[in-house]
Amino acid sequence: MKTSLGTDTLVYPTPVWIVGTYGPNGEPNVMTAAWGGVCCSKPPCVAISLRKARRTYAAIEQRKAFTISIPSEAHVKEADYFGMASGAKADKFSVAGLTPVKSELVDAPYVEEFPLVVECRLLHAFDLGVHTQFVGEILDVKADPAVLGEDGSPDVAMLKPMSFAPGTNTYHGVGRPLGKAFSVGRSLM
Amino acid sequence: MKTSLGTDTLVYPTPVWIVGTYGPNGEPNVMTAAWGGVCCSKPPCVAISLRKARRTYAAIEQRKAFTISIPSEAHVKEADYFGMASGAKADKFSVAGLTPVKSELVDAPYVEEFPLVVECRLLHAFDLGVHTQFVGEILDVKADPAVLGEDGSPDVAMLKPMSFAPGTNTYHGVGRPLGKAFSVGRSLM
Repeated sequence: MKTSLGTDTLVYPTPVWIVGTYGPNGEPNVMTAAWGGVCCSKPPCVAISLRKARRTYAAIEQRKAFTISIPSEAHVKEADYFGMASGAKADKFSVAGLTPVKSELVDAPYVEEFPLVVECRLLHAFDLGVHTQFVGEILDVKADPAVLGEDGSPDVAMLKPMSFAPGTNTYHGVGRPLGKAFSVGRSLM
Repeated sequence: MKTSLGTDTLVYPTPVWIVGTYGPNGEPNVMTAAWGGVCCSKPPCVAISLRKARRTYAAIEQRKAFTISIPSEAHVKEADYFGMASGAKADKFSVAGLTPVKSELVDAPYVEEFPLVVECRLLHAFDLGVHTQFVGEILDVKADPAVLGEDGSPDVAMLKPMSFAPGTNTYHGVGRPLGKAFSVGRSLM
């Protein structure tokens, strides 16, 4: 017998993504988003949801672009800080000692020290309630060679991305491999 | 210096969610989705993206409802199978030896044996390309008491949700706790 937990956003896992934009005066800014995910394979698109009061919200509307930098576990402190501080009051890159890199593809910066970055052109903005969902077309994914496996894909054992758990509000690493998709379930076919 | 991996949906982590619907004759069906995420806090909404050819696609359009059942690591085989087989050819619940439960809130079934389920009413359908994104309002979250922590929230150490890694196409467990959100980054404020 299951227990009702009510109307809440209790789903697992959610990502820990750092959204990069330029402010009104061209200043690089970042914020942390856990409300997001892949939303289309062709064109390849990723969605992030933001509150209207966020500085990043206005920046995406103005420049029609954003990046997602995926931090490793080692940067959990910086990722958490990026979600708390406001770019209106602090230069978050400077405070965190991290480096903004201007994307050559879109009008937004990414975080040099984070091992994987995604450069997005704004395709859609859907007003859903307290959050607006921005859908970005992925124009490129860039990774540090050190996190690429033998097949050339990012290897989560080296990338060490984090997840966020709603409810407990905790960050977690990625755990042990459980098997290959389109393979471990084949015995049931 | 980062390496370009091109225009691809290489972001981490993505979830492993089992979407439950009723087919045209009322038969319960499930499929696995990794393209999805929370998209709004109020109303609480979750998004999943599906290809038009999917049986689940027509089912959601018809009944304006779906559930998300979150499997634990122990069901990785079943989760993978649900992503490969078609409900047009197989009764996936029977094959997997799992039990469909009719939601009392929406016109869709969930998986009894999976520890956390979310019941959703369709709010929006956004055609993005090869995928259509369905936004569901969360009407209730239900959990097995065994996966709830002392504060009454789901505890990922007991829930053991999985993540999917694009590129390598691998499933992974949730790893070690890295800290509390809105807390570990406070030293930088």
